[in-house]
Amino acid sequence: MDRTDPEGAIAAAAARVSNWGRWGAVDVLGTLNFLDDAARLAGAATIRRGTAISLSQAFGGDGPQKGWRRRINPLHVMMDSGTDSAFGVQGFPHGAGGADDMITMPLQCSTQWDGLGHIFDHAVAWNGRKAPEVVDGMGDHVTGIQTVGARMAGRGVLLDVGRALGTDGELPDGFAITAEHLAATIQAQGESAHVRRGDIVMVRTGQLARVRRGLAAGAGWGDYAGGPAPGLSFTTADWLHGSEIAGLATDTWGFEVRPNEFDEAFQPLHQVVIPHIGLFLGEMWDLEELAADCAATGQWDSFLVAAPLMVTEAVGAPLHPVAIR
Amino acid sequence: MDRTDPEGAIAAAAARVSNWGRWGAVDVLGTLNFLDDAARLAGAATIRRGTAISLSQAFGGDGPQKGWRRRINPLHVMMDSGTDSAFGVQGFPHGAGGADDMITMPLQCSTQWDGLGHIFDHAVAWNGRKAPEVVDGMGDHVTGIQTVGARMAGRGVLLDVGRALGTDGELPDGFAITAEHLAATIQAQGESAHVRRGDIVMVRTGQLARVRRGLAAGAGWGDYAGGPAPGLSFTTADWLHGSEIAGLATDTWGFEVRPNEFDEAFQPLHQVVIPHIGLFLGEMWDLEELAADCAATGQWDSFLVAAPLMVTEAVGAPLHPVAIR
Amino acid sequence: MDRTDPEGAIAAAAARVSNWGRWGAVDVLGTLNFLDDAARLAGAATIRRGTAISLSQAFGGDGPQKGWRRRINPLHVMMDSGTDSAFGVQGFPHGAGGADDMITMPLQCSTQWDGLGHIFDHAVAWNGRKAPEVVDGMGDHVTGIQTVGARMAGRGVLLDVGRALGTDGELPDGFAITAEHLAATIQAQGESAHVRRGDIVMVRTGQLARVRRGLAAGAGWGDYAGGPAPGLSFTTADWLHGSEIAGLATDTWGFEVRPNEFDEAFQPLHQVVIPHIGLFLGEMWDLEELAADCAATGQWDSFLVAAPLMVTEAVGAPLHPVAIR
Amino acid sequence: MDRTDPEGAIAAAAARVSNWGRWGAVDVLGTLNFLDDAARLAGAATIRRGTAISLSQAFGGDGPQKGWRRRINPLHVMMDSGTDSAFGVQGFPHGAGGADDMITMPLQCSTQWDGLGHIFDHAVAWNGRKAPEVVDGMGDHVTGIQTVGARMAGRGVLLDVGRALGTDGELPDGFAITAEHLAATIQAQGESAHVRRGDIVMVRTGQLARVRRGLAAGAGWGDYAGGPAPGLSFTTADWLHGSEIAGLATDTWGFEVRPNEFDEAFQPLHQVVIPHIGLFLGEMWDLEELAADCAATGQWDSFLVAAPLMVTEAVGAPLHPVAIR
Repeated sequence: MDRTDPEGAIAAAAARVSNWGRWGAVDVLGTLNFLDDAARLAGAATIRRGTAISLSQAFGGDGPQKGWRRRINPLHVMMDSGTDSAFGVQGFPHGAGGADDMITMPLQCSTQWDGLGHIFDHAVAWNGRKAPEVVDGMGDHVTGIQTVGARMAGRGVLLDVGRALGTDGELPDGFAITAEHLAATIQAQGESAHVRRGDIVMVRTGQLARVRRGLAAGAGWGDYAGGPAPGLSFTTADWLHGSEIAGLATDTWGFEVRPNEFDEAFQPLHQVVIPHIGLFLGEMWDLEELAADCAATGQWDSFLVAAPLMVTEAVGAPLHPVAIR
Repeated sequence: MDRTDPEGAIAAAAARVSNWGRWGAVDVLGTLNFLDDAARLAGAATIRRGTAISLSQAFGGDGPQKGWRRRINPLHVMMDSGTDSAFGVQGFPHGAGGADDMITMPLQCSTQWDGLGHIFDHAVAWNGRKAPEVVDGMGDHVTGIQTVGARMAGRGVLLDVGRALGTDGELPDGFAITAEHLAATIQAQGESAHVRRGDIVMVRTGQLARVRRGLAAGAGWGDYAGGPAPGLSFTTADWLHGSEIAGLATDTWGFEVRPNEFDEAFQPLHQVVIPHIGLFLGEMWDLEELAADCAATGQWDSFLVAAPLMVTEAVGAPLHPVAIR
Repeated sequence: MDRTDPEGAIAAAAARVSNWGRWGAVDVLGTLNFLDDAARLAGAATIRRGTAISLSQAFGGDGPQKGWRRRINPLHVMMDSGTDSAFGVQGFPHGAGGADDMITMPLQCSTQWDGLGHIFDHAVAWNGRKAPEVVDGMGDHVTGIQTVGARMAGRGVLLDVGRALGTDGELPDGFAITAEHLAATIQAQGESAHVRRGDIVMVRTGQLARVRRGLAAGAGWGDYAGGPAPGLSFTTADWLHGSEIAGLATDTWGFEVRPNEFDEAFQPLHQVVIPHIGLFLGEMWDLEELAADCAATGQWDSFLVAAPLMVTEAVGAPLHPVAIR
Repeated sequence: MDRTDPEGAIAAAAARVSNWGRWGAVDVLGTLNFLDDAARLAGAATIRRGTAISLSQAFGGDGPQKGWRRRINPLHVMMDSGTDSAFGVQGFPHGAGGADDMITMPLQCSTQWDGLGHIFDHAVAWNGRKAPEVVDGMGDHVTGIQTVGARMAGRGVLLDVGRALGTDGELPDGFAITAEHLAATIQAQGESAHVRRGDIVMVRTGQLARVRRGLAAGAGWGDYAGGPAPGLSFTTADWLHGSEIAGLATDTWGFEVRPNEFDEAFQPLHQVVIPHIGLFLGEMWDLEELAADCAATGQWDSFLVAAPLMVTEAVGAPLHPVAIR
């Protein structure tokens, strides 16, 4: 890999892994096409105990965002409250009272899916469409996240690379996870970790656990949002394509390793993976409880239900992913 | 039922159905306590084909809200777009570009769960707590919706009262669904519609189908948000308590019949059900596709995954409920 | 005027009235260049009694907006309140308590100035700049409204065309105000209504008074936001240029007559006036109290202070214009 | 002053300076009653050159707020842009195009007036009203900032205490400005700085100049929002009352000295001044350019026009204050 030529590397990778046209010219689902009912049924077949594990971080004011490109933390405000109710100022009869609230938030502020309109390569979006014809100032008129619907439910495989290859369960910031690392993790975890067509893969780096220790110690979120982080190597583009997975989520802000592996770059793997492979990326997922349960039971696959909030024409959406085990 | 005395009727019903203290003084889960792993496993056991059906309405600007108590429709705005990307004004290297967006919305604007801090009876909240000690202007410090976590996944039973008892599959506005109507619907639907402890029950009235015809005809949403609607009768409080269900969702704005069944009232059944039973109510769910599938297959139960978005200290939250069949 | 050729008419008018380059290539102030200290001093010299009259409509939820292009009415929400204070939940010592609030609003939702980056002609902005180089998804990087600073204070002349030429003080919707109508109004009002270089002209049509009667009668705002309205004729472009005024404000949503005077058009006068003349347009001003005072005193000029809220890189801004008399 | 007894000191000061009932039981204007047409005319009489000086800080994302009690910096987002216009995706005819934007902001995020409903003393608001009857979760139903209207225009006197008594024009953080300091400043500045009934007084501490040097040096805003600052001493309550001024504004976040002058306190002077005197407080004003002009000319009074944005039922509001000289 030539560190000085991200543009060339991106072009070469894109040529190798492109799924453009694979599901027709009008396709808006990309790798979700791999997640059919049979794959989903296989996911459901992993359920053993009926336990539900949350994979969501919080949506609150104390989040990691620092305002980069105006991405703030969620602003949650009450419109009616118990204090108002107690003072009888709400105007309802017979002792009725209530509380109501609202939120203002970037759709990528916490646990989320990147939609297929989130990233472009030279102003070209998924399936070869011109970016401005897909997403203008009014929204994503083609691949809006609502097109995902309920499809994002299937077999979820946790690859706990932090546990398999890290120190005390964590990879250091800047650690680039390669296809070999993924293979070694699968090998270490065993049969239930084998990745199949249509799976949703979750890669745990351990960074969130490390950041949480800092939070508990009063150090704040630090640079979790956009700073150095372990993550997928640019070289995994072929694995991400060849594995025919439906989606991939991590416990980090940005899915791929940071600093990126070129001298001057910004999320080059995104630029291959979203517009060319049509892969859905999940970011800022909380994989801690799931990882502990997987390690304790030796079962690394779950039934994962991860439908995004149905925001019309959004280029991504928050969600509450749940692993059923 | 004395139409002139909602306050007396509410007090009497509350006395009969109260779950206060049932799960200890510190409980924040209410009827979610019924939904244990065994119940969830029974829900998962209903999966046959691996089909995922969305039960979510859209979150967009063309929604039903009309500003009552400042409840507006979601305001979705782009922060970066494909047009910006194409003009190269985003400042990213090597042809990278992206789109980003944000939303401003009341948490009860579309498909949602009411949390246990949403409704009070004479300024008393779930489990007997004083409302102002639970929810003030900063949020719900006790029963915030994030306490639900991933628990809201289990056996979901659709009771299509509209189909069983209505005309052309729909109940008229103002139709009060009684316990007898629920029983008749279960009877008509058969074994798979029997309601068990820990279930999440979905009641389809057909109102949403009717409103959608109006929308398609250009008539707009009309009074879907707060106007006349079919819904649960105040008299179902005992059924809702005795059935030991974990939650109940409808395809209407407000769950209970409107106009309410007292001369002067505002959602009296809410006032019993949320603070006294500790029951989770889902509103504005889209049950149309599920209903069609249930009718076609004769199977009325599904595995329902319905975890709310994890908004910290919110009194309710939007979600994308998914039925797996 | 050829009703079938707005594009030709716009091009011809633009050629006649263009101020491009008049104040140099880097100019961002347009017609505000006419409003120098001498003009402002002449404005101040009109002050007689020390009376201050508000020219602002309200910024509240009950406004005229109907969501066109996502323009909603202001959403004002409390973050702290007197009820919270009274319950002692705010955590302040020695009996301190407070209320705090926030707003979410389109910048053009109520009384406002259009900035010079608000309207383009064939994607060209004021002074001949390419629109995407002026305003992208991050804001107006050249003519942001904060560049106006405090300059917008000077002699304000009210031309009450509704009173001079209308029935019961109001022009009917669709009435196109021509240069002749302006001249007749000035003639009727007398010496103090003569328009001079650097003035800010206010044109009262009377539409707001009519709409307010509807509001008082429970009819709502009707189509005030974007519907038929009296307003400036397309043919006034030359007058707006030749008069060398600094700005012009009306009591209507959109300044120019609606329906527009071409078979198929959208605010064609804006397209000439903002990008080519560089003129600041004020909309949704409340000129009722001022008009009554002018009529009672026979003095039609005031000292007008109308600085926009300093929103960084905005293409317009709300304000509270005040006439001092 | 007993540093250990803020509650006692507040009660004593409140008893001395109370204006409750002075303008009748229904009064909502407080000290604005002092600012009559005669006082305003006297203000206008100070105009010499016609120069307009902005006293507003910016409303943008790079502001001083750090999220205290959810006070964020303004979030300004485009709804339409020049890039969209250039791509012809806006749907307008004949080459028309435009840009539009919105803002989400706490009303106290930048240059603002505190309204009379902003601060309570033991849950009692201006004129002796019970706080929850004035401001609930729906807004300030009594003293909403819109009641100020256009009245806030008059003689503005700058007291540049930083210049008169500080080092290099700045008071250090924690410097408590007393009545004696104010008198000394007036004395130093001369006749045009004499404060009269109905004046709006501006006190420059120089803190903003110091913070701006930090900003220019890349140090960020530091603790400008809520940290240590020079400001009015608690002991000035009597001066603020006896001077019969209409309002007072500073170049700091919080008007009074910080840390406050009691061992444990939160803005004790606010607690006297707003609910008991009924005085309007301006905060985060930019007095730098005005101060330079005053020093250069030796004239310390201006015509100050400072009408708040007319946000319905708000407890304060942003504004663009302008000094005309």
